[in-house]
Amino acid sequence: MGWDDAFANRLVERDLTIGVIGLGYVGLPTALGFHDVGFRVRGVDVSQRVIDSLSAGENPGDDPNHDDLIPQSQNHRWQISINSEDFVSQCDVVVVTVPTPVTKQRLPDLSFVLAAGKAVFSSISPNSGTIVVLESTVYPGVTREIWPPLIEQAGLVEGVDVHLAYCPERFVPGDEEHGVRQVPRVVGASSEGVGKDLRDLYATLTSGGVTFVGGIEIAEAAKVVENVQRDLNIALVNELSRIFPSMGIDVEEVLDAAATKWNFHRYRPGVGVGGHCIPVDPYYLIKKAKDAGAPVDLITSAREVNSSMPANVALDVAEILKNSEIEISGSNALLLGWSYKPGIGDPRETPAEPLAQALVGMGCNVQAFDPLVDELLFPKNLANLVRNQSEIQPFDIAILVTAHDEVIGLDWEKLSDIANHPIIYDGRRVLDVSSLKSLGWLVYLLGAPI
Amino acid sequence: MGWDDAFANRLVERDLTIGVIGLGYVGLPTALGFHDVGFRVRGVDVSQRVIDSLSAGENPGDDPNHDDLIPQSQNHRWQISINSEDFVSQCDVVVVTVPTPVTKQRLPDLSFVLAAGKAVFSSISPNSGTIVVLESTVYPGVTREIWPPLIEQAGLVEGVDVHLAYCPERFVPGDEEHGVRQVPRVVGASSEGVGKDLRDLYATLTSGGVTFVGGIEIAEAAKVVENVQRDLNIALVNELSRIFPSMGIDVEEVLDAAATKWNFHRYRPGVGVGGHCIPVDPYYLIKKAKDAGAPVDLITSAREVNSSMPANVALDVAEILKNSEIEISGSNALLLGWSYKPGIGDPRETPAEPLAQALVGMGCNVQAFDPLVDELLFPKNLANLVRNQSEIQPFDIAILVTAHDEVIGLDWEKLSDIANHPIIYDGRRVLDVSSLKSLGWLVYLLGAPI
Repeated sequence: MGWDDAFANRLVERDLTIGVIGLGYVGLPTALGFHDVGFRVRGVDVSQRVIDSLSAGENPGDDPNHDDLIPQSQNHRWQISINSEDFVSQCDVVVVTVPTPVTKQRLPDLSFVLAAGKAVFSSISPNSGTIVVLESTVYPGVTREIWPPLIEQAGLVEGVDVHLAYCPERFVPGDEEHGVRQVPRVVGASSEGVGKDLRDLYATLTSGGVTFVGGIEIAEAAKVVENVQRDLNIALVNELSRIFPSMGIDVEEVLDAAATKWNFHRYRPGVGVGGHCIPVDPYYLIKKAKDAGAPVDLITSAREVNSSMPANVALDVAEILKNSEIEISGSNALLLGWSYKPGIGDPRETPAEPLAQALVGMGCNVQAFDPLVDELLFPKNLANLVRNQSEIQPFDIAILVTAHDEVIGLDWEKLSDIANHPIIYDGRRVLDVSSLKSLGWLVYLLGAPI
Repeated sequence: MGWDDAFANRLVERDLTIGVIGLGYVGLPTALGFHDVGFRVRGVDVSQRVIDSLSAGENPGDDPNHDDLIPQSQNHRWQISINSEDFVSQCDVVVVTVPTPVTKQRLPDLSFVLAAGKAVFSSISPNSGTIVVLESTVYPGVTREIWPPLIEQAGLVEGVDVHLAYCPERFVPGDEEHGVRQVPRVVGASSEGVGKDLRDLYATLTSGGVTFVGGIEIAEAAKVVENVQRDLNIALVNELSRIFPSMGIDVEEVLDAAATKWNFHRYRPGVGVGGHCIPVDPYYLIKKAKDAGAPVDLITSAREVNSSMPANVALDVAEILKNSEIEISGSNALLLGWSYKPGIGDPRETPAEPLAQALVGMGCNVQAFDPLVDELLFPKNLANLVRNQSEIQPFDIAILVTAHDEVIGLDWEKLSDIANHPIIYDGRRVLDVSSLKSLGWLVYLLGAPI
């Protein structure tokens, strides 16, 4: 029986041990998913808080869907640790799901991928044939650029002692239809045998189908391109949200009309793009393409449009306050929602932060109402965080940033009562304008003439 | 009985006369469609050739689907003329479908819309309440900027003697599923009554549904945005087709992998974007937005990427010839396909022309094989046009530009026999690479490493 057959049989028997390095918003559901399917799972995270929480059978993350899935005690099928050495030698497959952020200079920060690789490869036994899969978003070539030197340092031979693969995470936080158990996946691997084994392994995790697409670089590139395309299409409607009001036209009416065409893609303009993928991944491709001397003008232009949206909204706010004869310096702005996406508490790369910075720079005091946002990651010296409507202080303008249910469902009559000026700017085009107007609100809309 | 009821009743009875000004690729199927539905139709075109052809019951255009629809003689329901004065006073609704090209400086050329407006309004009777509908693509505001002065000059009052509306054409030449009888339409009008009447009128023409979207500017903007979005998404894959080969990656493998994601839009890179809409309409929006002081960096960047593709392909060709030690100066290039789109003969804005210019600029002799292209519009001093495979002269490299069936179905073995060097560059990624290789062709692909 060959190696492939052995893997296939052990897959059927669920007789495989899967290591998951990094138990964040990607790693945790992945570990829980493989555990739920019946595999032995070994989870590792560098955060003592995460480990303590999981050890107590509690959910360290902000997705309530995980609450009931977390095993209440460790056993032979579920073990967690802060040290990867404890587990890696037991694993048949090690899945690396660590962050790949950008630096302040908008350059890829691969330090987590490097550190994870170092820890993993130093614990792999010769001849084990362990498969190490990177899931973090990178630019094409990263996996094969930065891990092989670490493999060599560990005295291992790639293709014999260890196999490399790439399987980008694709799930949508807060979207139950596109979780780790539902999304289609692609696998790139250095050999066809490994690629097909991983395809079959991931097919136990997700109902969305898994495609082996060939080399690692193809899968790396596919992930980046998916996010670059979204960034670009959002950038277009954002650019249009600045063009059409200058002609006296509301961009949303135009997009609704265009959307009656069979092949139109309906994106929505907004305060800006946040999160760990779309505002980050394009910089990875831009860096790599620039190094290769390839043109990146379009991708770069899209990134600039989207990253300029918070500042544009601040300029809209200044104009609105001026029209209402309110001095912006010393005024009070209330941001409704802070996290980057409705329904989740993650504030990474949220456009609320540069918006608050721009408003503070113009002399505003900023408070933010967000019942969901992770308090530890909230910049307290920039703005005041308010968790309940009753704590909201008087304000001169409210700006809807994140369309949380808790925001849309505010008691708008009460809110207008405590406003110095009941002015609202809908930065996501989700509010019921006529009902707000009937309550006495002065309503402005992103993408509509002021 | 009010005016609206009267229109509605006459619509049901097919007791309306529809004038169509401009019987080109938009106007002719529109006129034939309204005739087929049962209305009285009056068609006008400035071209004597078109009028002569239609008078003889023949098809003046290149869409064979119209052959059987053209009435064999004029009668009370079908009349055509070179003079709009002959008809306009008889019409209840006048549809204007004239070209809106760009000048050499990439500025909107509205001369045809102006000329048509002048001719139409000067023939409208006071109190007639004639509805004049523009279908040509324009930037938002055009209809209301350039026609009202002509209405005034004609001594008419808008809203009384004449009503204005805009209903952008959306159909896809050569695509039977998206013809004038199938595509969804939007109508913008200066009054709700006119908008709804036109909605009902166009609903007799198309099965795709008609939406009254409000003001004329909304419908104008929607049309431009549809094409701007396509231009942008094509530009992205074209930019990627230059990025990935520089990393040793084939862009099509990446796009295939990304397309396994549920919300990915699969566009295809190519030699360039042609035709009367996509490479033209963005300039209309850019002009208007610039005038209004709004940002247009992204839209402009997309346009630049797409319009640079023919020159990039020429550079690829130069590199390929160099690698094969063929002197480019004095070499012979064979373009396979010349029109801008498979299956049709229209060469407007075809990327073949700037590609041929770039090749000629590098010293190439260029012949183009295209059995469909309109010979009158072929630039004979730039390249030789060849209609049959048997007329193709020896060449050093073949470049697939347009994926006509007649191109894909060439006898590739015979073609390789008369080649000096059987080298093919597939600029549309439509050829069967392995079968060509087995015939001895050296195959290069747009978007793949050379």
